Amino acid sequence: MPKIAIEAVEQHNMTSYPAPFHEPVAGRWQRRLGAAAGLTALGASHVVLKPGGWSSQRHWHHGEDEFLIMLSGEAVLIEDGGETILRAGDCAAWAMGEANGHHLVNRSEADCAFICLSAGERARGGEYSDIDMIFTAEGYKRKDGTPYPPREA
Amino acid sequence: MPKIAIEAVEQHNMTSYPAPFHEPVAGRWQRRLGAAAGLTALGASHVVLKPGGWSSQRHWHHGEDEFLIMLSGEAVLIEDGGETILRAGDCAAWAMGEANGHHLVNRSEADCAFICLSAGERARGGEYSDIDMIFTAEGYKRKDGTPYPPREA
Repeated sequence: MPKIAIEAVEQHNMTSYPAPFHEPVAGRWQRRLGAAAGLTALGASHVVLKPGGWSSQRHWHHGEDEFLIMLSGEAVLIEDGGETILRAGDCAAWAMGEANGHHLVNRSEADCAFICLSAGERARGGEYSDIDMIFTAEGYKRKDGTPYPPREA
Repeated sequence: MPKIAIEAVEQHNMTSYPAPFHEPVAGRWQRRLGAAAGLTALGASHVVLKPGGWSSQRHWHHGEDEFLIMLSGEAVLIEDGGETILRAGDCAAWAMGEANGHHLVNRSEADCAFICLSAGERARGGEYSDIDMIFTAEGYKRKDGTPYPPREA
C-alpha cells in the first residue's frame, strides 16, 4: 500500500560533508521516504533534528526546488533576510537559482520533525552561504575550485 | 521570506474535468503553494477536502511521482488494494508508471487538509481507474481516444 510505514524506513545521520562541516549535522536523523517508495523524480525525506542539530549547512541550489513541511516541534529557519520560527503545519519553499542560503536549526530542548522534498537537477550543484564550500556534480569544493578530500579516506 | 503565508494564497475549487466527473471534486479547495513560491520543478498544493469531497478521480500518472502528507482531519485512501485511513502526519507516495489508481475521499463530518507534491513530466499523461477517461498532453479523452469536449464551451 502506498501509505508509508515511516518507522520502518531506515533512519541514519550520515553526511558526506568534509570536516569540520559535518559536525553541526550530527543531530540530523533522516529517512529517505521517496526512495523507499520507489520515487525517482521527487525526493522526500523525513528528518528529525535533535536539540542543537542543523538541517544542513546554509545553502542554495542552482537546479533544484525545495519544499518543507514542519510536522512537530519547533525550528528556526535562517536565511539572508533573518530568522523565522517554524512550527507544525508551517511550510517553506525555495526556488532553484535563488541565491538565498537557508537552513533549519533546532534551538529548542525537544526534537523537531519535518518532511523535506526536492525536484530538479541536483547535479547542477549549489553554494554555501557561511563557509568556503560549493557542491558540484564532482563533489564538494572550495570556492576557488579546489576539491575537498573525502572525510573518510 | 520563504516561509509561506498559506492563508494568503488564493483558494479555489476549480477543475477542468469534463461533466459529470467534476462533481465529486467540488468539495476540494486548493492553494497552489509551489507556484506562489516560484517553484518550477516541484508542484506543491495545500488541499482542504470538505466532508464528502474527493481529491480527484481515481488515477495514476505515466510520468509523474506524487507524495502526500496529511496535515489534519481524516481521509480514506482508495486504491486497487483496498482502503487505508490517513490522519495527521501520515505520508503516502505513488511512483510514476505504477498502474494503481488512487484518490482520497473525506467520509468524515469535518474538513481534512493535506499537502500534495509532484515532480516529473505531467504531459506524459495518465489513466483513470473507475471511469472512461485518460489524460494526455492534449486534454481529457475517452479510453478509445475520442476527446471529451471542454465542460464550459
